[in-house]
Amino acid sequence: VRALEFRDGSLRLLDQRRLPHEIIWIECRDYVTVAEAIRTLSVRGAPAIGLAAAYGVVLAAQTARDGSTFREDVSKAMEVLARTRPTAVNLFYALGRMRAAVESHAGEPPEELTRHLRAEADAMMEADQAANQAMTAFGASLIPDGAGVLTHCNTGALVSSVLGTALGAIRVAHEQGKSVHVWVDETRPLLQGARLTTWELQQLGIPFTLITDNMAAHFMARGKVDLAMVGADRIAANGDTANKIGTYGVAVLARAHELPFYVVAPTSTVDLTIPSGEAITIEERRPEEVMSFGGVPVSPPNITVANPAFDVTPARLISGIVTEGGIATDPYAPRLSEHVRAGAGVPAR
Amino acid sequence: VRALEFRDGSLRLLDQRRLPHEIIWIECRDYVTVAEAIRTLSVRGAPAIGLAAAYGVVLAAQTARDGSTFREDVSKAMEVLARTRPTAVNLFYALGRMRAAVESHAGEPPEELTRHLRAEADAMMEADQAANQAMTAFGASLIPDGAGVLTHCNTGALVSSVLGTALGAIRVAHEQGKSVHVWVDETRPLLQGARLTTWELQQLGIPFTLITDNMAAHFMARGKVDLAMVGADRIAANGDTANKIGTYGVAVLARAHELPFYVVAPTSTVDLTIPSGEAITIEERRPEEVMSFGGVPVSPPNITVANPAFDVTPARLISGIVTEGGIATDPYAPRLSEHVRAGAGVPAR
Repeated sequence: VRALEFRDGSLRLLDQRRLPHEIIWIECRDYVTVAEAIRTLSVRGAPAIGLAAAYGVVLAAQTARDGSTFREDVSKAMEVLARTRPTAVNLFYALGRMRAAVESHAGEPPEELTRHLRAEADAMMEADQAANQAMTAFGASLIPDGAGVLTHCNTGALVSSVLGTALGAIRVAHEQGKSVHVWVDETRPLLQGARLTTWELQQLGIPFTLITDNMAAHFMARGKVDLAMVGADRIAANGDTANKIGTYGVAVLARAHELPFYVVAPTSTVDLTIPSGEAITIEERRPEEVMSFGGVPVSPPNITVANPAFDVTPARLISGIVTEGGIATDPYAPRLSEHVRAGAGVPAR
Repeated sequence: VRALEFRDGSLRLLDQRRLPHEIIWIECRDYVTVAEAIRTLSVRGAPAIGLAAAYGVVLAAQTARDGSTFREDVSKAMEVLARTRPTAVNLFYALGRMRAAVESHAGEPPEELTRHLRAEADAMMEADQAANQAMTAFGASLIPDGAGVLTHCNTGALVSSVLGTALGAIRVAHEQGKSVHVWVDETRPLLQGARLTTWELQQLGIPFTLITDNMAAHFMARGKVDLAMVGADRIAANGDTANKIGTYGVAVLARAHELPFYVVAPTSTVDLTIPSGEAITIEERRPEEVMSFGGVPVSPPNITVANPAFDVTPARLISGIVTEGGIATDPYAPRLSEHVRAGAGVPAR
């Protein structure tokens, strides 16, 4: 299972909207196709969105290479890619690094610049792989043998370059020989848990039970869940964490049942430019996602629907934030900035 | 909108599986059809299940009237109806009353007994109407002008003889001229909120917003919800309440956000024979309900799924239990038995 690969000058994305029923790769030869794939969630998960955008810029540079409008074309691609989804900060982190690469090689000809952009995207891909290895090992250390682990949305190999975040940590714990049972929130409205997490766990041979989101409290009360572990789309300097809608509810429930609640994400998801979660823009998606599924309408037509794609979990409800730099605990501000400094160290914007 | 009516010797049930897209009535001329309608949720909601079962017994008596096996046939119908769904106590309450009617007229001929059974079912229908009027008025008194009210599942006119329970109270508050905004949990897996509550609210002209279950916490944190109000399938003597899966989670979230959480149900839902919620049997339904959405398969096939149809909210998380006898508060045990004594007063079994 992998979400994306850059090969022979084009970016291949596994179409996550069609999973688990069909395995279809989208062949992107231009940045417009990449932007559309991000917008429609064909590629999703904060780290994967960042990497896809980086290679989107490479595609823009490749196709613009011979023109006199090279810099303009690449800039425009960055703008279009930046407007696809507002919440996951990895998108802006990746575009920030690509912009920095353009600027630090400003005088060079298009062909050279394209080479530098490709190298920068590859470097991010490699850094993401290394971060994945490190953070999933730290995350696995938080999972006791015999644990029931509740997870929300999909945070496995589909969301990044290799292992993923929270689900990657669960996978590593399993590979270490620990007995783990995963409680998989289906994760409405787009059912990433029911469609993708079950599919990944099935392939990995890790035992799990699929539940609807509203069953989590019931199984916590019955002692089936020992901890909750989720990913992140943006982590503010103080540790407040934006993640898939429903995450905040899981955190409140975990606290009420005295269960640890962990966030696993690379430092490219940490946004030190915002002090707290209040500053995080929450994407509002189309009402149809709530009113129907797979094209089949559920509710009456013409009704009022809310569809925030994310919510914000305040740092006080988080037992630990795991990055490639280690396991940060409250107070998060000093620890997270240490992790970021030790990591790639490039600011988000 | 009404869930059921007995007319010209047959029971008509509005097929709630087909709503809101189609208005189809199921014509039941025998108890087997009624049992099937209860099992498949064509008729649902604790009070409506009880009334449907009562009329199911009437149908059994009508068709058995001329045979020498009258008592056996009626007994068998009661057994079959009792096995349809295990959690909603109104089913057992209604069948208990029908059995008592048979016993108190033991010596009479089938025709007479059938008349008594019909009279008993009609009496329950009338009592349910009166209970609905009273409890929705009490419930409405708990809803302040301008309130945002979160509700779960469907608890309107479709679940009983007339107004319903929690949604009935919201309707009465609206009819009293209060400004009310309803936050409608879609209520997975069978989407009674998305399909039925929205449909009823639309017809009543009450403003609402449909959300997925996992958005409730987000809107509570944002100050949009002032209280939560739900129905019940069985209330133990101490106030512990079984209701649609997800209700317990809403109660935990309400408490964490310091919001009142109210249960609205007739005394026919109170089961004084069980001391606490631990004794309540939780119905486990087919995994396919979770693995698909609106009939569309979602997850991979052949996976492990949990599908408890109900959960139990402990009395300590409930701010008030509203019956036709008034608003009971903690400690619930003495208040609930007063309400039951003042009500129909017939024990559940």
